[in-house]
Amino acid sequence: MKYAPKEEIDTRIEKLKVLMEKASLDGAFFHYKIDYYYLSGTMQDSLLFVPLDTEPILFVKREISRARRESPLSNIVPYRSIKDIPQHLKPMERIGVQLDVIPYNDVMKFKNLLGNVEFVDCSPLTREIRRKKSPFEIAIMEKAAQISRKVYAKVPEFLREGATEIEVGGNMEAYAKSLGHEGLLRVRSLNYEAYTWHILSGRTGSIVSQSDSPMGGLGLSPAFPVGASFKKIKKNEPILIDFGICYHGYQVDQTRMYAIGSMPDLFARAYWTCKDIHDRVLEKVVEGYTSKELFEYSKELAEKAGYADYYLGFKPHKVRFLGHGIGIELSEFPFIAATHTYPIEDGEVFAIEPKMVWPRKGCCGYENTVHFTNGKCRVITDIDDNIIIV
Amino acid sequence: MKYAPKEEIDTRIEKLKVLMEKASLDGAFFHYKIDYYYLSGTMQDSLLFVPLDTEPILFVKREISRARRESPLSNIVPYRSIKDIPQHLKPMERIGVQLDVIPYNDVMKFKNLLGNVEFVDCSPLTREIRRKKSPFEIAIMEKAAQISRKVYAKVPEFLREGATEIEVGGNMEAYAKSLGHEGLLRVRSLNYEAYTWHILSGRTGSIVSQSDSPMGGLGLSPAFPVGASFKKIKKNEPILIDFGICYHGYQVDQTRMYAIGSMPDLFARAYWTCKDIHDRVLEKVVEGYTSKELFEYSKELAEKAGYADYYLGFKPHKVRFLGHGIGIELSEFPFIAATHTYPIEDGEVFAIEPKMVWPRKGCCGYENTVHFTNGKCRVITDIDDNIIIV
Repeated sequence: MKYAPKEEIDTRIEKLKVLMEKASLDGAFFHYKIDYYYLSGTMQDSLLFVPLDTEPILFVKREISRARRESPLSNIVPYRSIKDIPQHLKPMERIGVQLDVIPYNDVMKFKNLLGNVEFVDCSPLTREIRRKKSPFEIAIMEKAAQISRKVYAKVPEFLREGATEIEVGGNMEAYAKSLGHEGLLRVRSLNYEAYTWHILSGRTGSIVSQSDSPMGGLGLSPAFPVGASFKKIKKNEPILIDFGICYHGYQVDQTRMYAIGSMPDLFARAYWTCKDIHDRVLEKVVEGYTSKELFEYSKELAEKAGYADYYLGFKPHKVRFLGHGIGIELSEFPFIAATHTYPIEDGEVFAIEPKMVWPRKGCCGYENTVHFTNGKCRVITDIDDNIIIV
Repeated sequence: MKYAPKEEIDTRIEKLKVLMEKASLDGAFFHYKIDYYYLSGTMQDSLLFVPLDTEPILFVKREISRARRESPLSNIVPYRSIKDIPQHLKPMERIGVQLDVIPYNDVMKFKNLLGNVEFVDCSPLTREIRRKKSPFEIAIMEKAAQISRKVYAKVPEFLREGATEIEVGGNMEAYAKSLGHEGLLRVRSLNYEAYTWHILSGRTGSIVSQSDSPMGGLGLSPAFPVGASFKKIKKNEPILIDFGICYHGYQVDQTRMYAIGSMPDLFARAYWTCKDIHDRVLEKVVEGYTSKELFEYSKELAEKAGYADYYLGFKPHKVRFLGHGIGIELSEFPFIAATHTYPIEDGEVFAIEPKMVWPRKGCCGYENTVHFTNGKCRVITDIDDNIIIV
């Protein structure tokens, strides 16, 4: 197991403090585990307090010896209830709390406990510093990509006529887990649970669901209405495999196309158009296009190639993003979307996923996880680009 | 796919309205999907409003045609943002909102939108009516138990000396998914994500983690510090398999013990003591013991059998529950725990899990999902009770 080194955590805390000072915060609490993992190195049941001018305190409920092993923070103390916390705090006027994810009741308990203190949402601060990945994080993401390469290379062994989508997904997942894939793909969302088994074949590739994705899939039941289903895979239909991999909490995301027998021309041509859009958008990332410009440019390319009605879904189900930052959450900054106006910056990692959907027929798509560094876009998920015919 | 019939949903809504009236609520909003699935039959991206005296309105963002197919509610309307909602509402004074799970920011947006209305936590109402399972729900849980039986029967094929815990877990999961298992085990918790691959062998069975469980396991990394790990399974050590199954959103939970070669006496004896505690506690459920009494009784039994130091974990990591209700969440009412003072009531379904842990040596346990009905405890997860030696 890899533990986050002290310098890594120290750097993150320092960056956070710069933003806290700008936001006039005396301190900030992190109780949602994604961010306290980022800032402490542990996901043991904890609550992290970062004061502006002294050392962070990690309050641990269970299990403290593991937290001490995993986290390089020096001030790690046990707690049983939030009532144990105020005694460790100096008087404060304005503090950060993760108001975007912490339930209302929990925030109110905290307010009652701390009295007359102003609460400010501090999630924008961690989301901001998490945009840029350190060499330590990139190394973990590359390890995730190695797993991904092996898993995608194994897909032909799992694909056979008559196998259900979920069978293929389950087999990929079992193999991926044996290599270190952690199964869950975390998302900062109340209701959206990301899943890895996004295997869509033929017509199920045209089914839309709850998720903000051009294609949702049929899923297994009304309680899991997304991703792979019991549909049997047939010959000569497009099979989209969008299977995220998670290693040490860090995700990579990629999509490739497969077929048994042959790939219908419609989808083969569209696939290479998706690949072309991907490549040309990455050139514009380098040129400094803003997110919104990248998104609009990709739409123009799709339109010119004759895919206006199918690109990123069909009406009224089109989605309004082409890419999303990725790291310890599946959708982080930067987003490549119509409503985001910043350029991609050095050190950022994002997934870019041009996809097309035909009503009742199916879908195709191409996706990679990309690291923008030293003025270049480096594809982390460098798996075979070809359509794989089994 | 099974959809919830109209009578089922109507009955649930009626029960809810009785509790809403008692709580003096003019209406209640359900935006956390577990409960709007329960009350509507769909998990499409929605927001359910239940007025006290008129029909429920299901507001659907994506995807409305699926929501209309899955839900028998008659009033299903599209919405794009919560701003579209107030126009559908009559003036109200006091409304329910799921304050235990909805993030603070979202509740505040809602407050600003609705103006001078009192917000009350309505989650206790749904959690109350979800305690008792209908015949429709029991039939689904029995189907989950059928999957579980097949998966547990297949375990000997996956167990071999030198296989890692996660390999075994991944293979079980792949097979379970091919039968309809949905992978995620939902829990009403900010930070706790339940996982199915709880495969612990020898020493990893003594490792405690973030989870409120006698044994947490080593897990795969600091980011997934629970459950199966890369530890290789050896001969003659206890292997605990606690592998929940989820079908159409409904879960069943069970634990059995395995070994390659032979089971050490310590664990074999303790296993049968766990089974005995399980059986004798179920007798007391029938006699009407309260939850607290059931818990204390089980402790006495463990103490008399000489297991005081190991029952439900070792100090200071002992847990304070023996069982938990189960349904569309992994831990529901009723709980069998020291702090709960109600008896188990007719129609309730719970998992009961006497377990023992020895520091540095390992663990053992026995668990079933049980339906208390017509004055009897019926084990739903009726899989082989024997220790399985491969």
